Amino acid sequence: MEKIKVTIWNENLHEKRIPEKMTHYPKGLHGAIAEALEVDAEFEIRIALMDEPENGLPDALLDDTDVLIWWGHMAHNDVSDRVAQKVVSRVWEGMGLIALHASHKSKPMRLLLGTDCKLKWRVANDSERVWVIEPSHPIAKGLPESFLIEHEEMYGERINYPRPDELIFISWYSGGEVGRTGNVWYRGNGRIFYFQPGHETFDALNNEYVRMVIRNAAHWVANK
Amino acid sequence: MEKIKVTIWNENLHEKRIPEKMTHYPKGLHGAIAEALEVDAEFEIRIALMDEPENGLPDALLDDTDVLIWWGHMAHNDVSDRVAQKVVSRVWEGMGLIALHASHKSKPMRLLLGTDCKLKWRVANDSERVWVIEPSHPIAKGLPESFLIEHEEMYGERINYPRPDELIFISWYSGGEVGRTGNVWYRGNGRIFYFQPGHETFDALNNEYVRMVIRNAAHWVANK
Amino acid sequence: MEKIKVTIWNENLHEKRIPEKMTHYPKGLHGAIAEALEVDAEFEIRIALMDEPENGLPDALLDDTDVLIWWGHMAHNDVSDRVAQKVVSRVWEGMGLIALHASHKSKPMRLLLGTDCKLKWRVANDSERVWVIEPSHPIAKGLPESFLIEHEEMYGERINYPRPDELIFISWYSGGEVGRTGNVWYRGNGRIFYFQPGHETFDALNNEYVRMVIRNAAHWVANK
Amino acid sequence: MEKIKVTIWNENLHEKRIPEKMTHYPKGLHGAIAEALEVDAEFEIRIALMDEPENGLPDALLDDTDVLIWWGHMAHNDVSDRVAQKVVSRVWEGMGLIALHASHKSKPMRLLLGTDCKLKWRVANDSERVWVIEPSHPIAKGLPESFLIEHEEMYGERINYPRPDELIFISWYSGGEVGRTGNVWYRGNGRIFYFQPGHETFDALNNEYVRMVIRNAAHWVANK
Repeated sequence: MEKIKVTIWNENLHEKRIPEKMTHYPKGLHGAIAEALEVDAEFEIRIALMDEPENGLPDALLDDTDVLIWWGHMAHNDVSDRVAQKVVSRVWEGMGLIALHASHKSKPMRLLLGTDCKLKWRVANDSERVWVIEPSHPIAKGLPESFLIEHEEMYGERINYPRPDELIFISWYSGGEVGRTGNVWYRGNGRIFYFQPGHETFDALNNEYVRMVIRNAAHWVANK
Repeated sequence: MEKIKVTIWNENLHEKRIPEKMTHYPKGLHGAIAEALEVDAEFEIRIALMDEPENGLPDALLDDTDVLIWWGHMAHNDVSDRVAQKVVSRVWEGMGLIALHASHKSKPMRLLLGTDCKLKWRVANDSERVWVIEPSHPIAKGLPESFLIEHEEMYGERINYPRPDELIFISWYSGGEVGRTGNVWYRGNGRIFYFQPGHETFDALNNEYVRMVIRNAAHWVANK
Repeated sequence: MEKIKVTIWNENLHEKRIPEKMTHYPKGLHGAIAEALEVDAEFEIRIALMDEPENGLPDALLDDTDVLIWWGHMAHNDVSDRVAQKVVSRVWEGMGLIALHASHKSKPMRLLLGTDCKLKWRVANDSERVWVIEPSHPIAKGLPESFLIEHEEMYGERINYPRPDELIFISWYSGGEVGRTGNVWYRGNGRIFYFQPGHETFDALNNEYVRMVIRNAAHWVANK
Repeated sequence: MEKIKVTIWNENLHEKRIPEKMTHYPKGLHGAIAEALEVDAEFEIRIALMDEPENGLPDALLDDTDVLIWWGHMAHNDVSDRVAQKVVSRVWEGMGLIALHASHKSKPMRLLLGTDCKLKWRVANDSERVWVIEPSHPIAKGLPESFLIEHEEMYGERINYPRPDELIFISWYSGGEVGRTGNVWYRGNGRIFYFQPGHETFDALNNEYVRMVIRNAAHWVANK
């Protein structure tokens, strides 16, 4: 069986700057995402970190990547324009892209979506309930009708996205907001999935359903 | 100025069967909807009730209607197939249709949408916060980023709609659910807007923002 | 490997009434469609004909069908309402549906789409060039950028469809028209694909690319 | 009546470099577009040319523009990044944008759409027939079911656009191609309409239906 080559990209700054707050992710956010994928033998996993040469994404790696998972938050502008544009071009060619949490505002996502992706947000004690809008979509395979994330940063409407080509999840927040938190867009031959969970100081990336979504999405955006 | 001819159709059964519970709508649900529209001189308003001949919608009236507002809940099947199909044909020709509250399961809506429109629901003490997803849409004109409806029946996901052509509102419910509660579909030359508020024993149809949405939508689906 | 259970439904009237004109399809239109699928061992193929009991679709068969392929043209109304509604319900539950050629106006399709599906048509000497709009869609896998069908009935715009959820093919006709000829709609948990080729007196269903599309679509609407 | 402030932006290079070939547009392409709009007293028209300061679009003008019509072809990269980004931001805020002909590859359009907008093209003796896909859309108001443009550059599929939010026109070309030639996208609060006609050496911008579309679109993207 041909493997799906997944590259997990992490900004990897919180890990270095506030390690004392990263208790949920002792192996880094990239490590948690890798754990989510490792249970599925179909994935071949690679890690790319921003402070590596070429922001961790030399052409040889990017050209050999079926699915790129992106986690960035505090340093979107530290990614070089050249690397961001290369990611965009690879998506147009057919590479799948999964953008997690604050990565909606990453350079590649803003270039691909064509908006500033601004939204309403709050870091607080919110809990989040993720509702499945398209239960038959491959990304939602195996999920219950909704699932709870006990603590997450609130990302609510109105979110300045282009209209999603497919709306998979809508979240309810305990503070009174809602958000389109699982969205698909197509650009060129590539599939893009944005998924909201994944704040650095909460433990959503350890949630079994969040991990299931990431696995499902990695299969689906690979489009093999 | 040419008027927009709006026909308000009401099942008009709760008014007769449980008048003691209809305290918010002393003039009937159709009366409340008419009040919402009357402040705008551009509308010419007519009332049609189910127990009138041809379910209140003889050809002469329907053919002279620019916008049909539909409120039905307990007796969808008492509308004749012939009248339902005539409404559908008028939408195809260009008549606008606004379906309120439980009217998502009315005969015309199921025929136009092609699904059973099942959803999760609960009549309880829920409050509902309606969030504006497309602030620049004419239906959302003048609204704040969200507005509160203190009491409403919960209509939550997963709602078995066809994917909306335009998603205008998403609601948050105090009980933990979310719903796509303001949706546009196009069928033939006609514009269809579904809007969730309007339970017979709560007072949402007296809410100033709900009324604003109904007025905005009546202008927009008229497509003059 | 679990098989995909495909039921091919044919009106089977031209075969009986004008056999002399059915020279391209000596085994019937259903036979040609079956030939298209038989090269792929993943399909388990069944044939259902309209003049069989329950229009060929008893519950036991329909409930055991992953993908229903529909070919009807001259006798849409001879399918019973009960069978048509049962097909619709099965789509809502997740059965895939492929509607070929004139089947856009079949009872199940009109019930699922919510429009009359009228279009501009002409049986003449038109050739048709099918252009791929979404080359990365699984339905388009393996196709060139366009392919020629030497003779087909023209089905052109404006076609009274609801806006497709995905537009896969647009056709060019030698007579000067265009048509959205490969369209996806989602209804409930089911995927619907409409594909225009397949007139009874022309040989499009023997075309290698048409057959490839039908195979691709059968895999895709099965949504396993 | 409040006027709709329309700014017509032209690259204005062919006018200076190959005036002998610009016989259809003695007042420049911007002059032809202005003529299309002048018959409607609701428009207040301004002209902006690339070789003016700030590429013709100083903040004072852009901030006072309801609708920007863009015509560029040979020198997309001569527009400064700053001006392009300012146009993009104004669209997000609600300014309407109409991109004509080769302007699909202009800097603002590529930034807003998120793709490279590559397409198949040929300058030859093609005629083009534009088919109306959404006859009830305000942009199509007053049009016949199709109209002919006797000479145009062929812009055909597969066109690397993001899926249009609304598909208004599909064109047939005499050379055998088709194209999605009238498309709407929403970005932020702004409406974007792309329309394919307008090659510099053919006379499409003098065509009465092309002019009608531009007027309709200017009203519609203004979203007053």
